[in-house]
Amino acid sequence: MKNVRVGIIGLGNMGKGHLSYILEGKVSGLELVAVADVTDAAKQWAKEHLPQEVAFFEQPQQLIESPTVDGVIVCTPHYSHPELAIECFKHNKHVLLEKPAGVYTKQVREMNEAAAGSGVVFSMMYNQRMNPLYQKLKNLVDSGELGDIRRTNWIITDWYRSQHYYDSGSWRATWEGEGGGVLLNQSPHQLDLWQWTVSLMPKRLRAFCYFGKARNIEVENDVTAFVEYENGGTGVFITTTIEAPGTNRFEVVGTRGKIVIENDKLVFSRLRESETEYNERTTESFGKPECWTIDVPIQGENTGHRGITQNWIDAILHDTPLIAPGEEGINGLMLSNAMLLSTWNDDWVELPIDEDQFLEQLQQRIEESRKVRGEQ
Amino acid sequence: MKNVRVGIIGLGNMGKGHLSYILEGKVSGLELVAVADVTDAAKQWAKEHLPQEVAFFEQPQQLIESPTVDGVIVCTPHYSHPELAIECFKHNKHVLLEKPAGVYTKQVREMNEAAAGSGVVFSMMYNQRMNPLYQKLKNLVDSGELGDIRRTNWIITDWYRSQHYYDSGSWRATWEGEGGGVLLNQSPHQLDLWQWTVSLMPKRLRAFCYFGKARNIEVENDVTAFVEYENGGTGVFITTTIEAPGTNRFEVVGTRGKIVIENDKLVFSRLRESETEYNERTTESFGKPECWTIDVPIQGENTGHRGITQNWIDAILHDTPLIAPGEEGINGLMLSNAMLLSTWNDDWVELPIDEDQFLEQLQQRIEESRKVRGEQ
Repeated sequence: MKNVRVGIIGLGNMGKGHLSYILEGKVSGLELVAVADVTDAAKQWAKEHLPQEVAFFEQPQQLIESPTVDGVIVCTPHYSHPELAIECFKHNKHVLLEKPAGVYTKQVREMNEAAAGSGVVFSMMYNQRMNPLYQKLKNLVDSGELGDIRRTNWIITDWYRSQHYYDSGSWRATWEGEGGGVLLNQSPHQLDLWQWTVSLMPKRLRAFCYFGKARNIEVENDVTAFVEYENGGTGVFITTTIEAPGTNRFEVVGTRGKIVIENDKLVFSRLRESETEYNERTTESFGKPECWTIDVPIQGENTGHRGITQNWIDAILHDTPLIAPGEEGINGLMLSNAMLLSTWNDDWVELPIDEDQFLEQLQQRIEESRKVRGEQ
Repeated sequence: MKNVRVGIIGLGNMGKGHLSYILEGKVSGLELVAVADVTDAAKQWAKEHLPQEVAFFEQPQQLIESPTVDGVIVCTPHYSHPELAIECFKHNKHVLLEKPAGVYTKQVREMNEAAAGSGVVFSMMYNQRMNPLYQKLKNLVDSGELGDIRRTNWIITDWYRSQHYYDSGSWRATWEGEGGGVLLNQSPHQLDLWQWTVSLMPKRLRAFCYFGKARNIEVENDVTAFVEYENGGTGVFITTTIEAPGTNRFEVVGTRGKIVIENDKLVFSRLRESETEYNERTTESFGKPECWTIDVPIQGENTGHRGITQNWIDAILHDTPLIAPGEEGINGLMLSNAMLLSTWNDDWVELPIDEDQFLEQLQQRIEESRKVRGEQ
């Protein structure tokens, strides 16, 4: 294969975003051959903006079954992600899937099982994994520079959304239309990076979600979650859409110091000897381990969406390792589902979650919402 | 009265600390007339270091009853704070009480009731209320500059203590000797400032305390707490003694922006119009309220312990309003007790707490600890 012939399903904001760098020829080895969207508006848009040789399909299934397509970028509404990906796997098409991986882990686990047997290349569009700051953090943690992780703390509250935003589509911020709020729409990248960078998943969590806080919506738009890791460490994740200017500050503390990523900078405060060693030998009552402020070189460009798309193409053509393997999409979603479940149950939730219980509770909310909207 | 004749009970680290600035004549209107301590070592120390005219009493009660004393600074172990203060009130002596106000709110409430009927001047040694940064924060909140409070977040993890520190006294970090850990010994100032600066007490909280984490001690040394305020806002408080270099970062978010105090600086990001007003009028889907970075002038010196002592003397001599009224000592302790109780019950705790339940659970831990140490 010289080029990967790619089709894009869904011409919303994200689909058009991917088209823009693809049409500029910025992904080598990618040949755009088709798009699909169910709306007339998208059909019209495609006619006006896309080269003639790009086929337009009114149904995703037509694109997936087309023999001219080797790989598919899926940018449709959340609920359809797993089912479309599974269709692609059935037809032996490589998949690059927009976030979130799905709305509930049950369907995403099924997608992952289908992917495992398919032999195709399956990647998540986790474009923020291309940010050199988070790559460096992961590198420092995985190489042991930070020692054992004792605490994580992410305040990611700069996702401001006005009531006008929520009112701009009737499906928005409803259980039926989107299946969730800030955890599913705004923070999936941080929920991914939170566990990817430290290579640790929580073993249980206790979360406090608020639904329609200072906004007239159904879903959660303000969340604080506390987690325990297997190694005894703990963490906090805070996100909201009602604060301005908001904060984006990720702190990771280990036995060898701490790293803070904020304002596009990474600051590493490194202990000369580990806290554990210092604590064992010291005879000072009020001393502290010697701490160095490290100027860490951050190299490379944040190539974002384009970078992930290129990596997916390279994996197909040259067996390059994936930066965001599709199977890892379930991790961030597991955290998101667990946070909602903990709030609904007003209790701890162990991970992995009871996926049937979550789905049942989600369906209840979809039904209640239909009743309220007089659709019963 | 020209001068207030003052006695100090307890010549440990804190008592000696207060003596040093008092003996240098740095508190006008204060005349040191007596000290009391039950140990021989303190008696010897007093003989060597104090002027002859300062009386030494072997028993606190003698100092409290001495007609030469108008006011008493109490710097004894935690458990004795309320009982000594109550003795002072009975004998019509003004009181300046070291933190914490006590170990459990039941005894502190009784102390406050005794104070209320006494007519003396009763102050807490909350020296960090003299820090102009926190005074400015309180001023900005109370004057409405920050709007309605939506979130508070204090990461106060720079209280590093080694095992050697804990081993330096057999009473340290035990339920019987101190009655608590980081919440009672290291963080009382922050627990006070957390609610004092925003003029809000939580209505309920859910806390996660860890006991003897990475240290061989009985009491809590790692805490994360989540709170809900009456007005719908939420907050997080994180403290520990096992991290280095640690963090001290206090973020307060209101409908008019946010204030962050960190590294001895206050940064005010102020919205030109409130988030509420902006949200009501905007027709932008991805806009945000205009935000100004404000350079807030911070005036005055952090006079610390000396400042609080001066304020107490001024209140006695000139009716100056107290900066840290003694009755407010219960607020921080209420938070500390509630955090332990929430962990012990593995559940929410409403405030004000059930003080009998807390005391019962504390006494259980004191008894268990005695058994383990073979003192039963």
